[in-house]
Amino acid sequence: MNTICGHSIEDYMALVERFHGHPAPGLLAGGFMVDLAKKNLPDGEFFDALCETKVCLPDAIQILTPCTVGNGWLKIVDTGRFALALFEKYTGEGVRVHLDAGRLGPYPEYESWFFRRRPKREQDRDRLMREIAEAGAGVMGVNRVRVDAGLVGKNSGGKTEPCPGCGEAYPVETGARCGACAGLPLYARP
Amino acid sequence: MNTICGHSIEDYMALVERFHGHPAPGLLAGGFMVDLAKKNLPDGEFFDALCETKVCLPDAIQILTPCTVGNGWLKIVDTGRFALALFEKYTGEGVRVHLDAGRLGPYPEYESWFFRRRPKREQDRDRLMREIAEAGAGVMGVNRVRVDAGLVGKNSGGKTEPCPGCGEAYPVETGARCGACAGLPLYARP
Repeated sequence: MNTICGHSIEDYMALVERFHGHPAPGLLAGGFMVDLAKKNLPDGEFFDALCETKVCLPDAIQILTPCTVGNGWLKIVDTGRFALALFEKYTGEGVRVHLDAGRLGPYPEYESWFFRRRPKREQDRDRLMREIAEAGAGVMGVNRVRVDAGLVGKNSGGKTEPCPGCGEAYPVETGARCGACAGLPLYARP
Repeated sequence: MNTICGHSIEDYMALVERFHGHPAPGLLAGGFMVDLAKKNLPDGEFFDALCETKVCLPDAIQILTPCTVGNGWLKIVDTGRFALALFEKYTGEGVRVHLDAGRLGPYPEYESWFFRRRPKREQDRDRLMREIAEAGAGVMGVNRVRVDAGLVGKNSGGKTEPCPGCGEAYPVETGARCGACAGLPLYARP
């Protein structure tokens, strides 16, 4: 019987519904990924997380580990790959887990979902969830990695000052103006 | 008595500790910001969220609204400003709330924390939390905004294919290779 970080699949999916809003297939697959990564770390290690996509997977990490976007222990670098790493927070040593599409052959609905081959309305949802649960960590690849030094350790943030453009405080080390005054598109001009 | 989205401050800070790991000052300030933004939206409106910083504030949004990073209803564009917007998910019409440092004069500990003028160990933590709770939404600025069209609506994701570099699936619309093979620094080379 597959479990996810000590939860039954049902209990885990209830946590998913509460936080993520709906029982998404990506959260079920992601749960097995977090579980596998944790099993490959030394017990009790204090780890940070790196997520390679913004879609679904960050929520599996936020539900199952102490790492969140807002506390800085979860960093997202969007490579577009469905992969995550858990790593020791000072050395960057850790494990990376990815969904290995080459192993999805025995799970046609899972494979079709992963490659987005069919619109959502044509998916067989029950079968998809059953296949993901059945496959569990068996379709995940796991490797030891050392996370790039730029992603290891806390960004202390540094001094903030009012931006000369808008007057709102921002961390001065990021440039002469805040990101909005430097041109990031945020709000439509009136 | 200040409340935060219907919670007493104590109850809200218990939710914060559970999700964020510790009762951070930024989460208390952020709670008042989310509360104020929600009060300025039409009742029952189905909204998305935009957060202008990765520090603390995304977790206040993830605790108090249905919007999370993984479900795509919370987008983060890091301008460095302590600000958020809640907006109607199709039109982008909504409200932006920011912490208005010009109003922090009566709250010296709050002001010193916000501008990071003293190292954490020199902060008077109890006084800081008391000042943030006392100030509540009174130090927040609120404006109507229309969020940039590029940030409105769901990114459907598009087709994924194996990356010719690493073989892992990624959304082909993002380029000829996945972000990692395109050069994003993630893992140290052996």
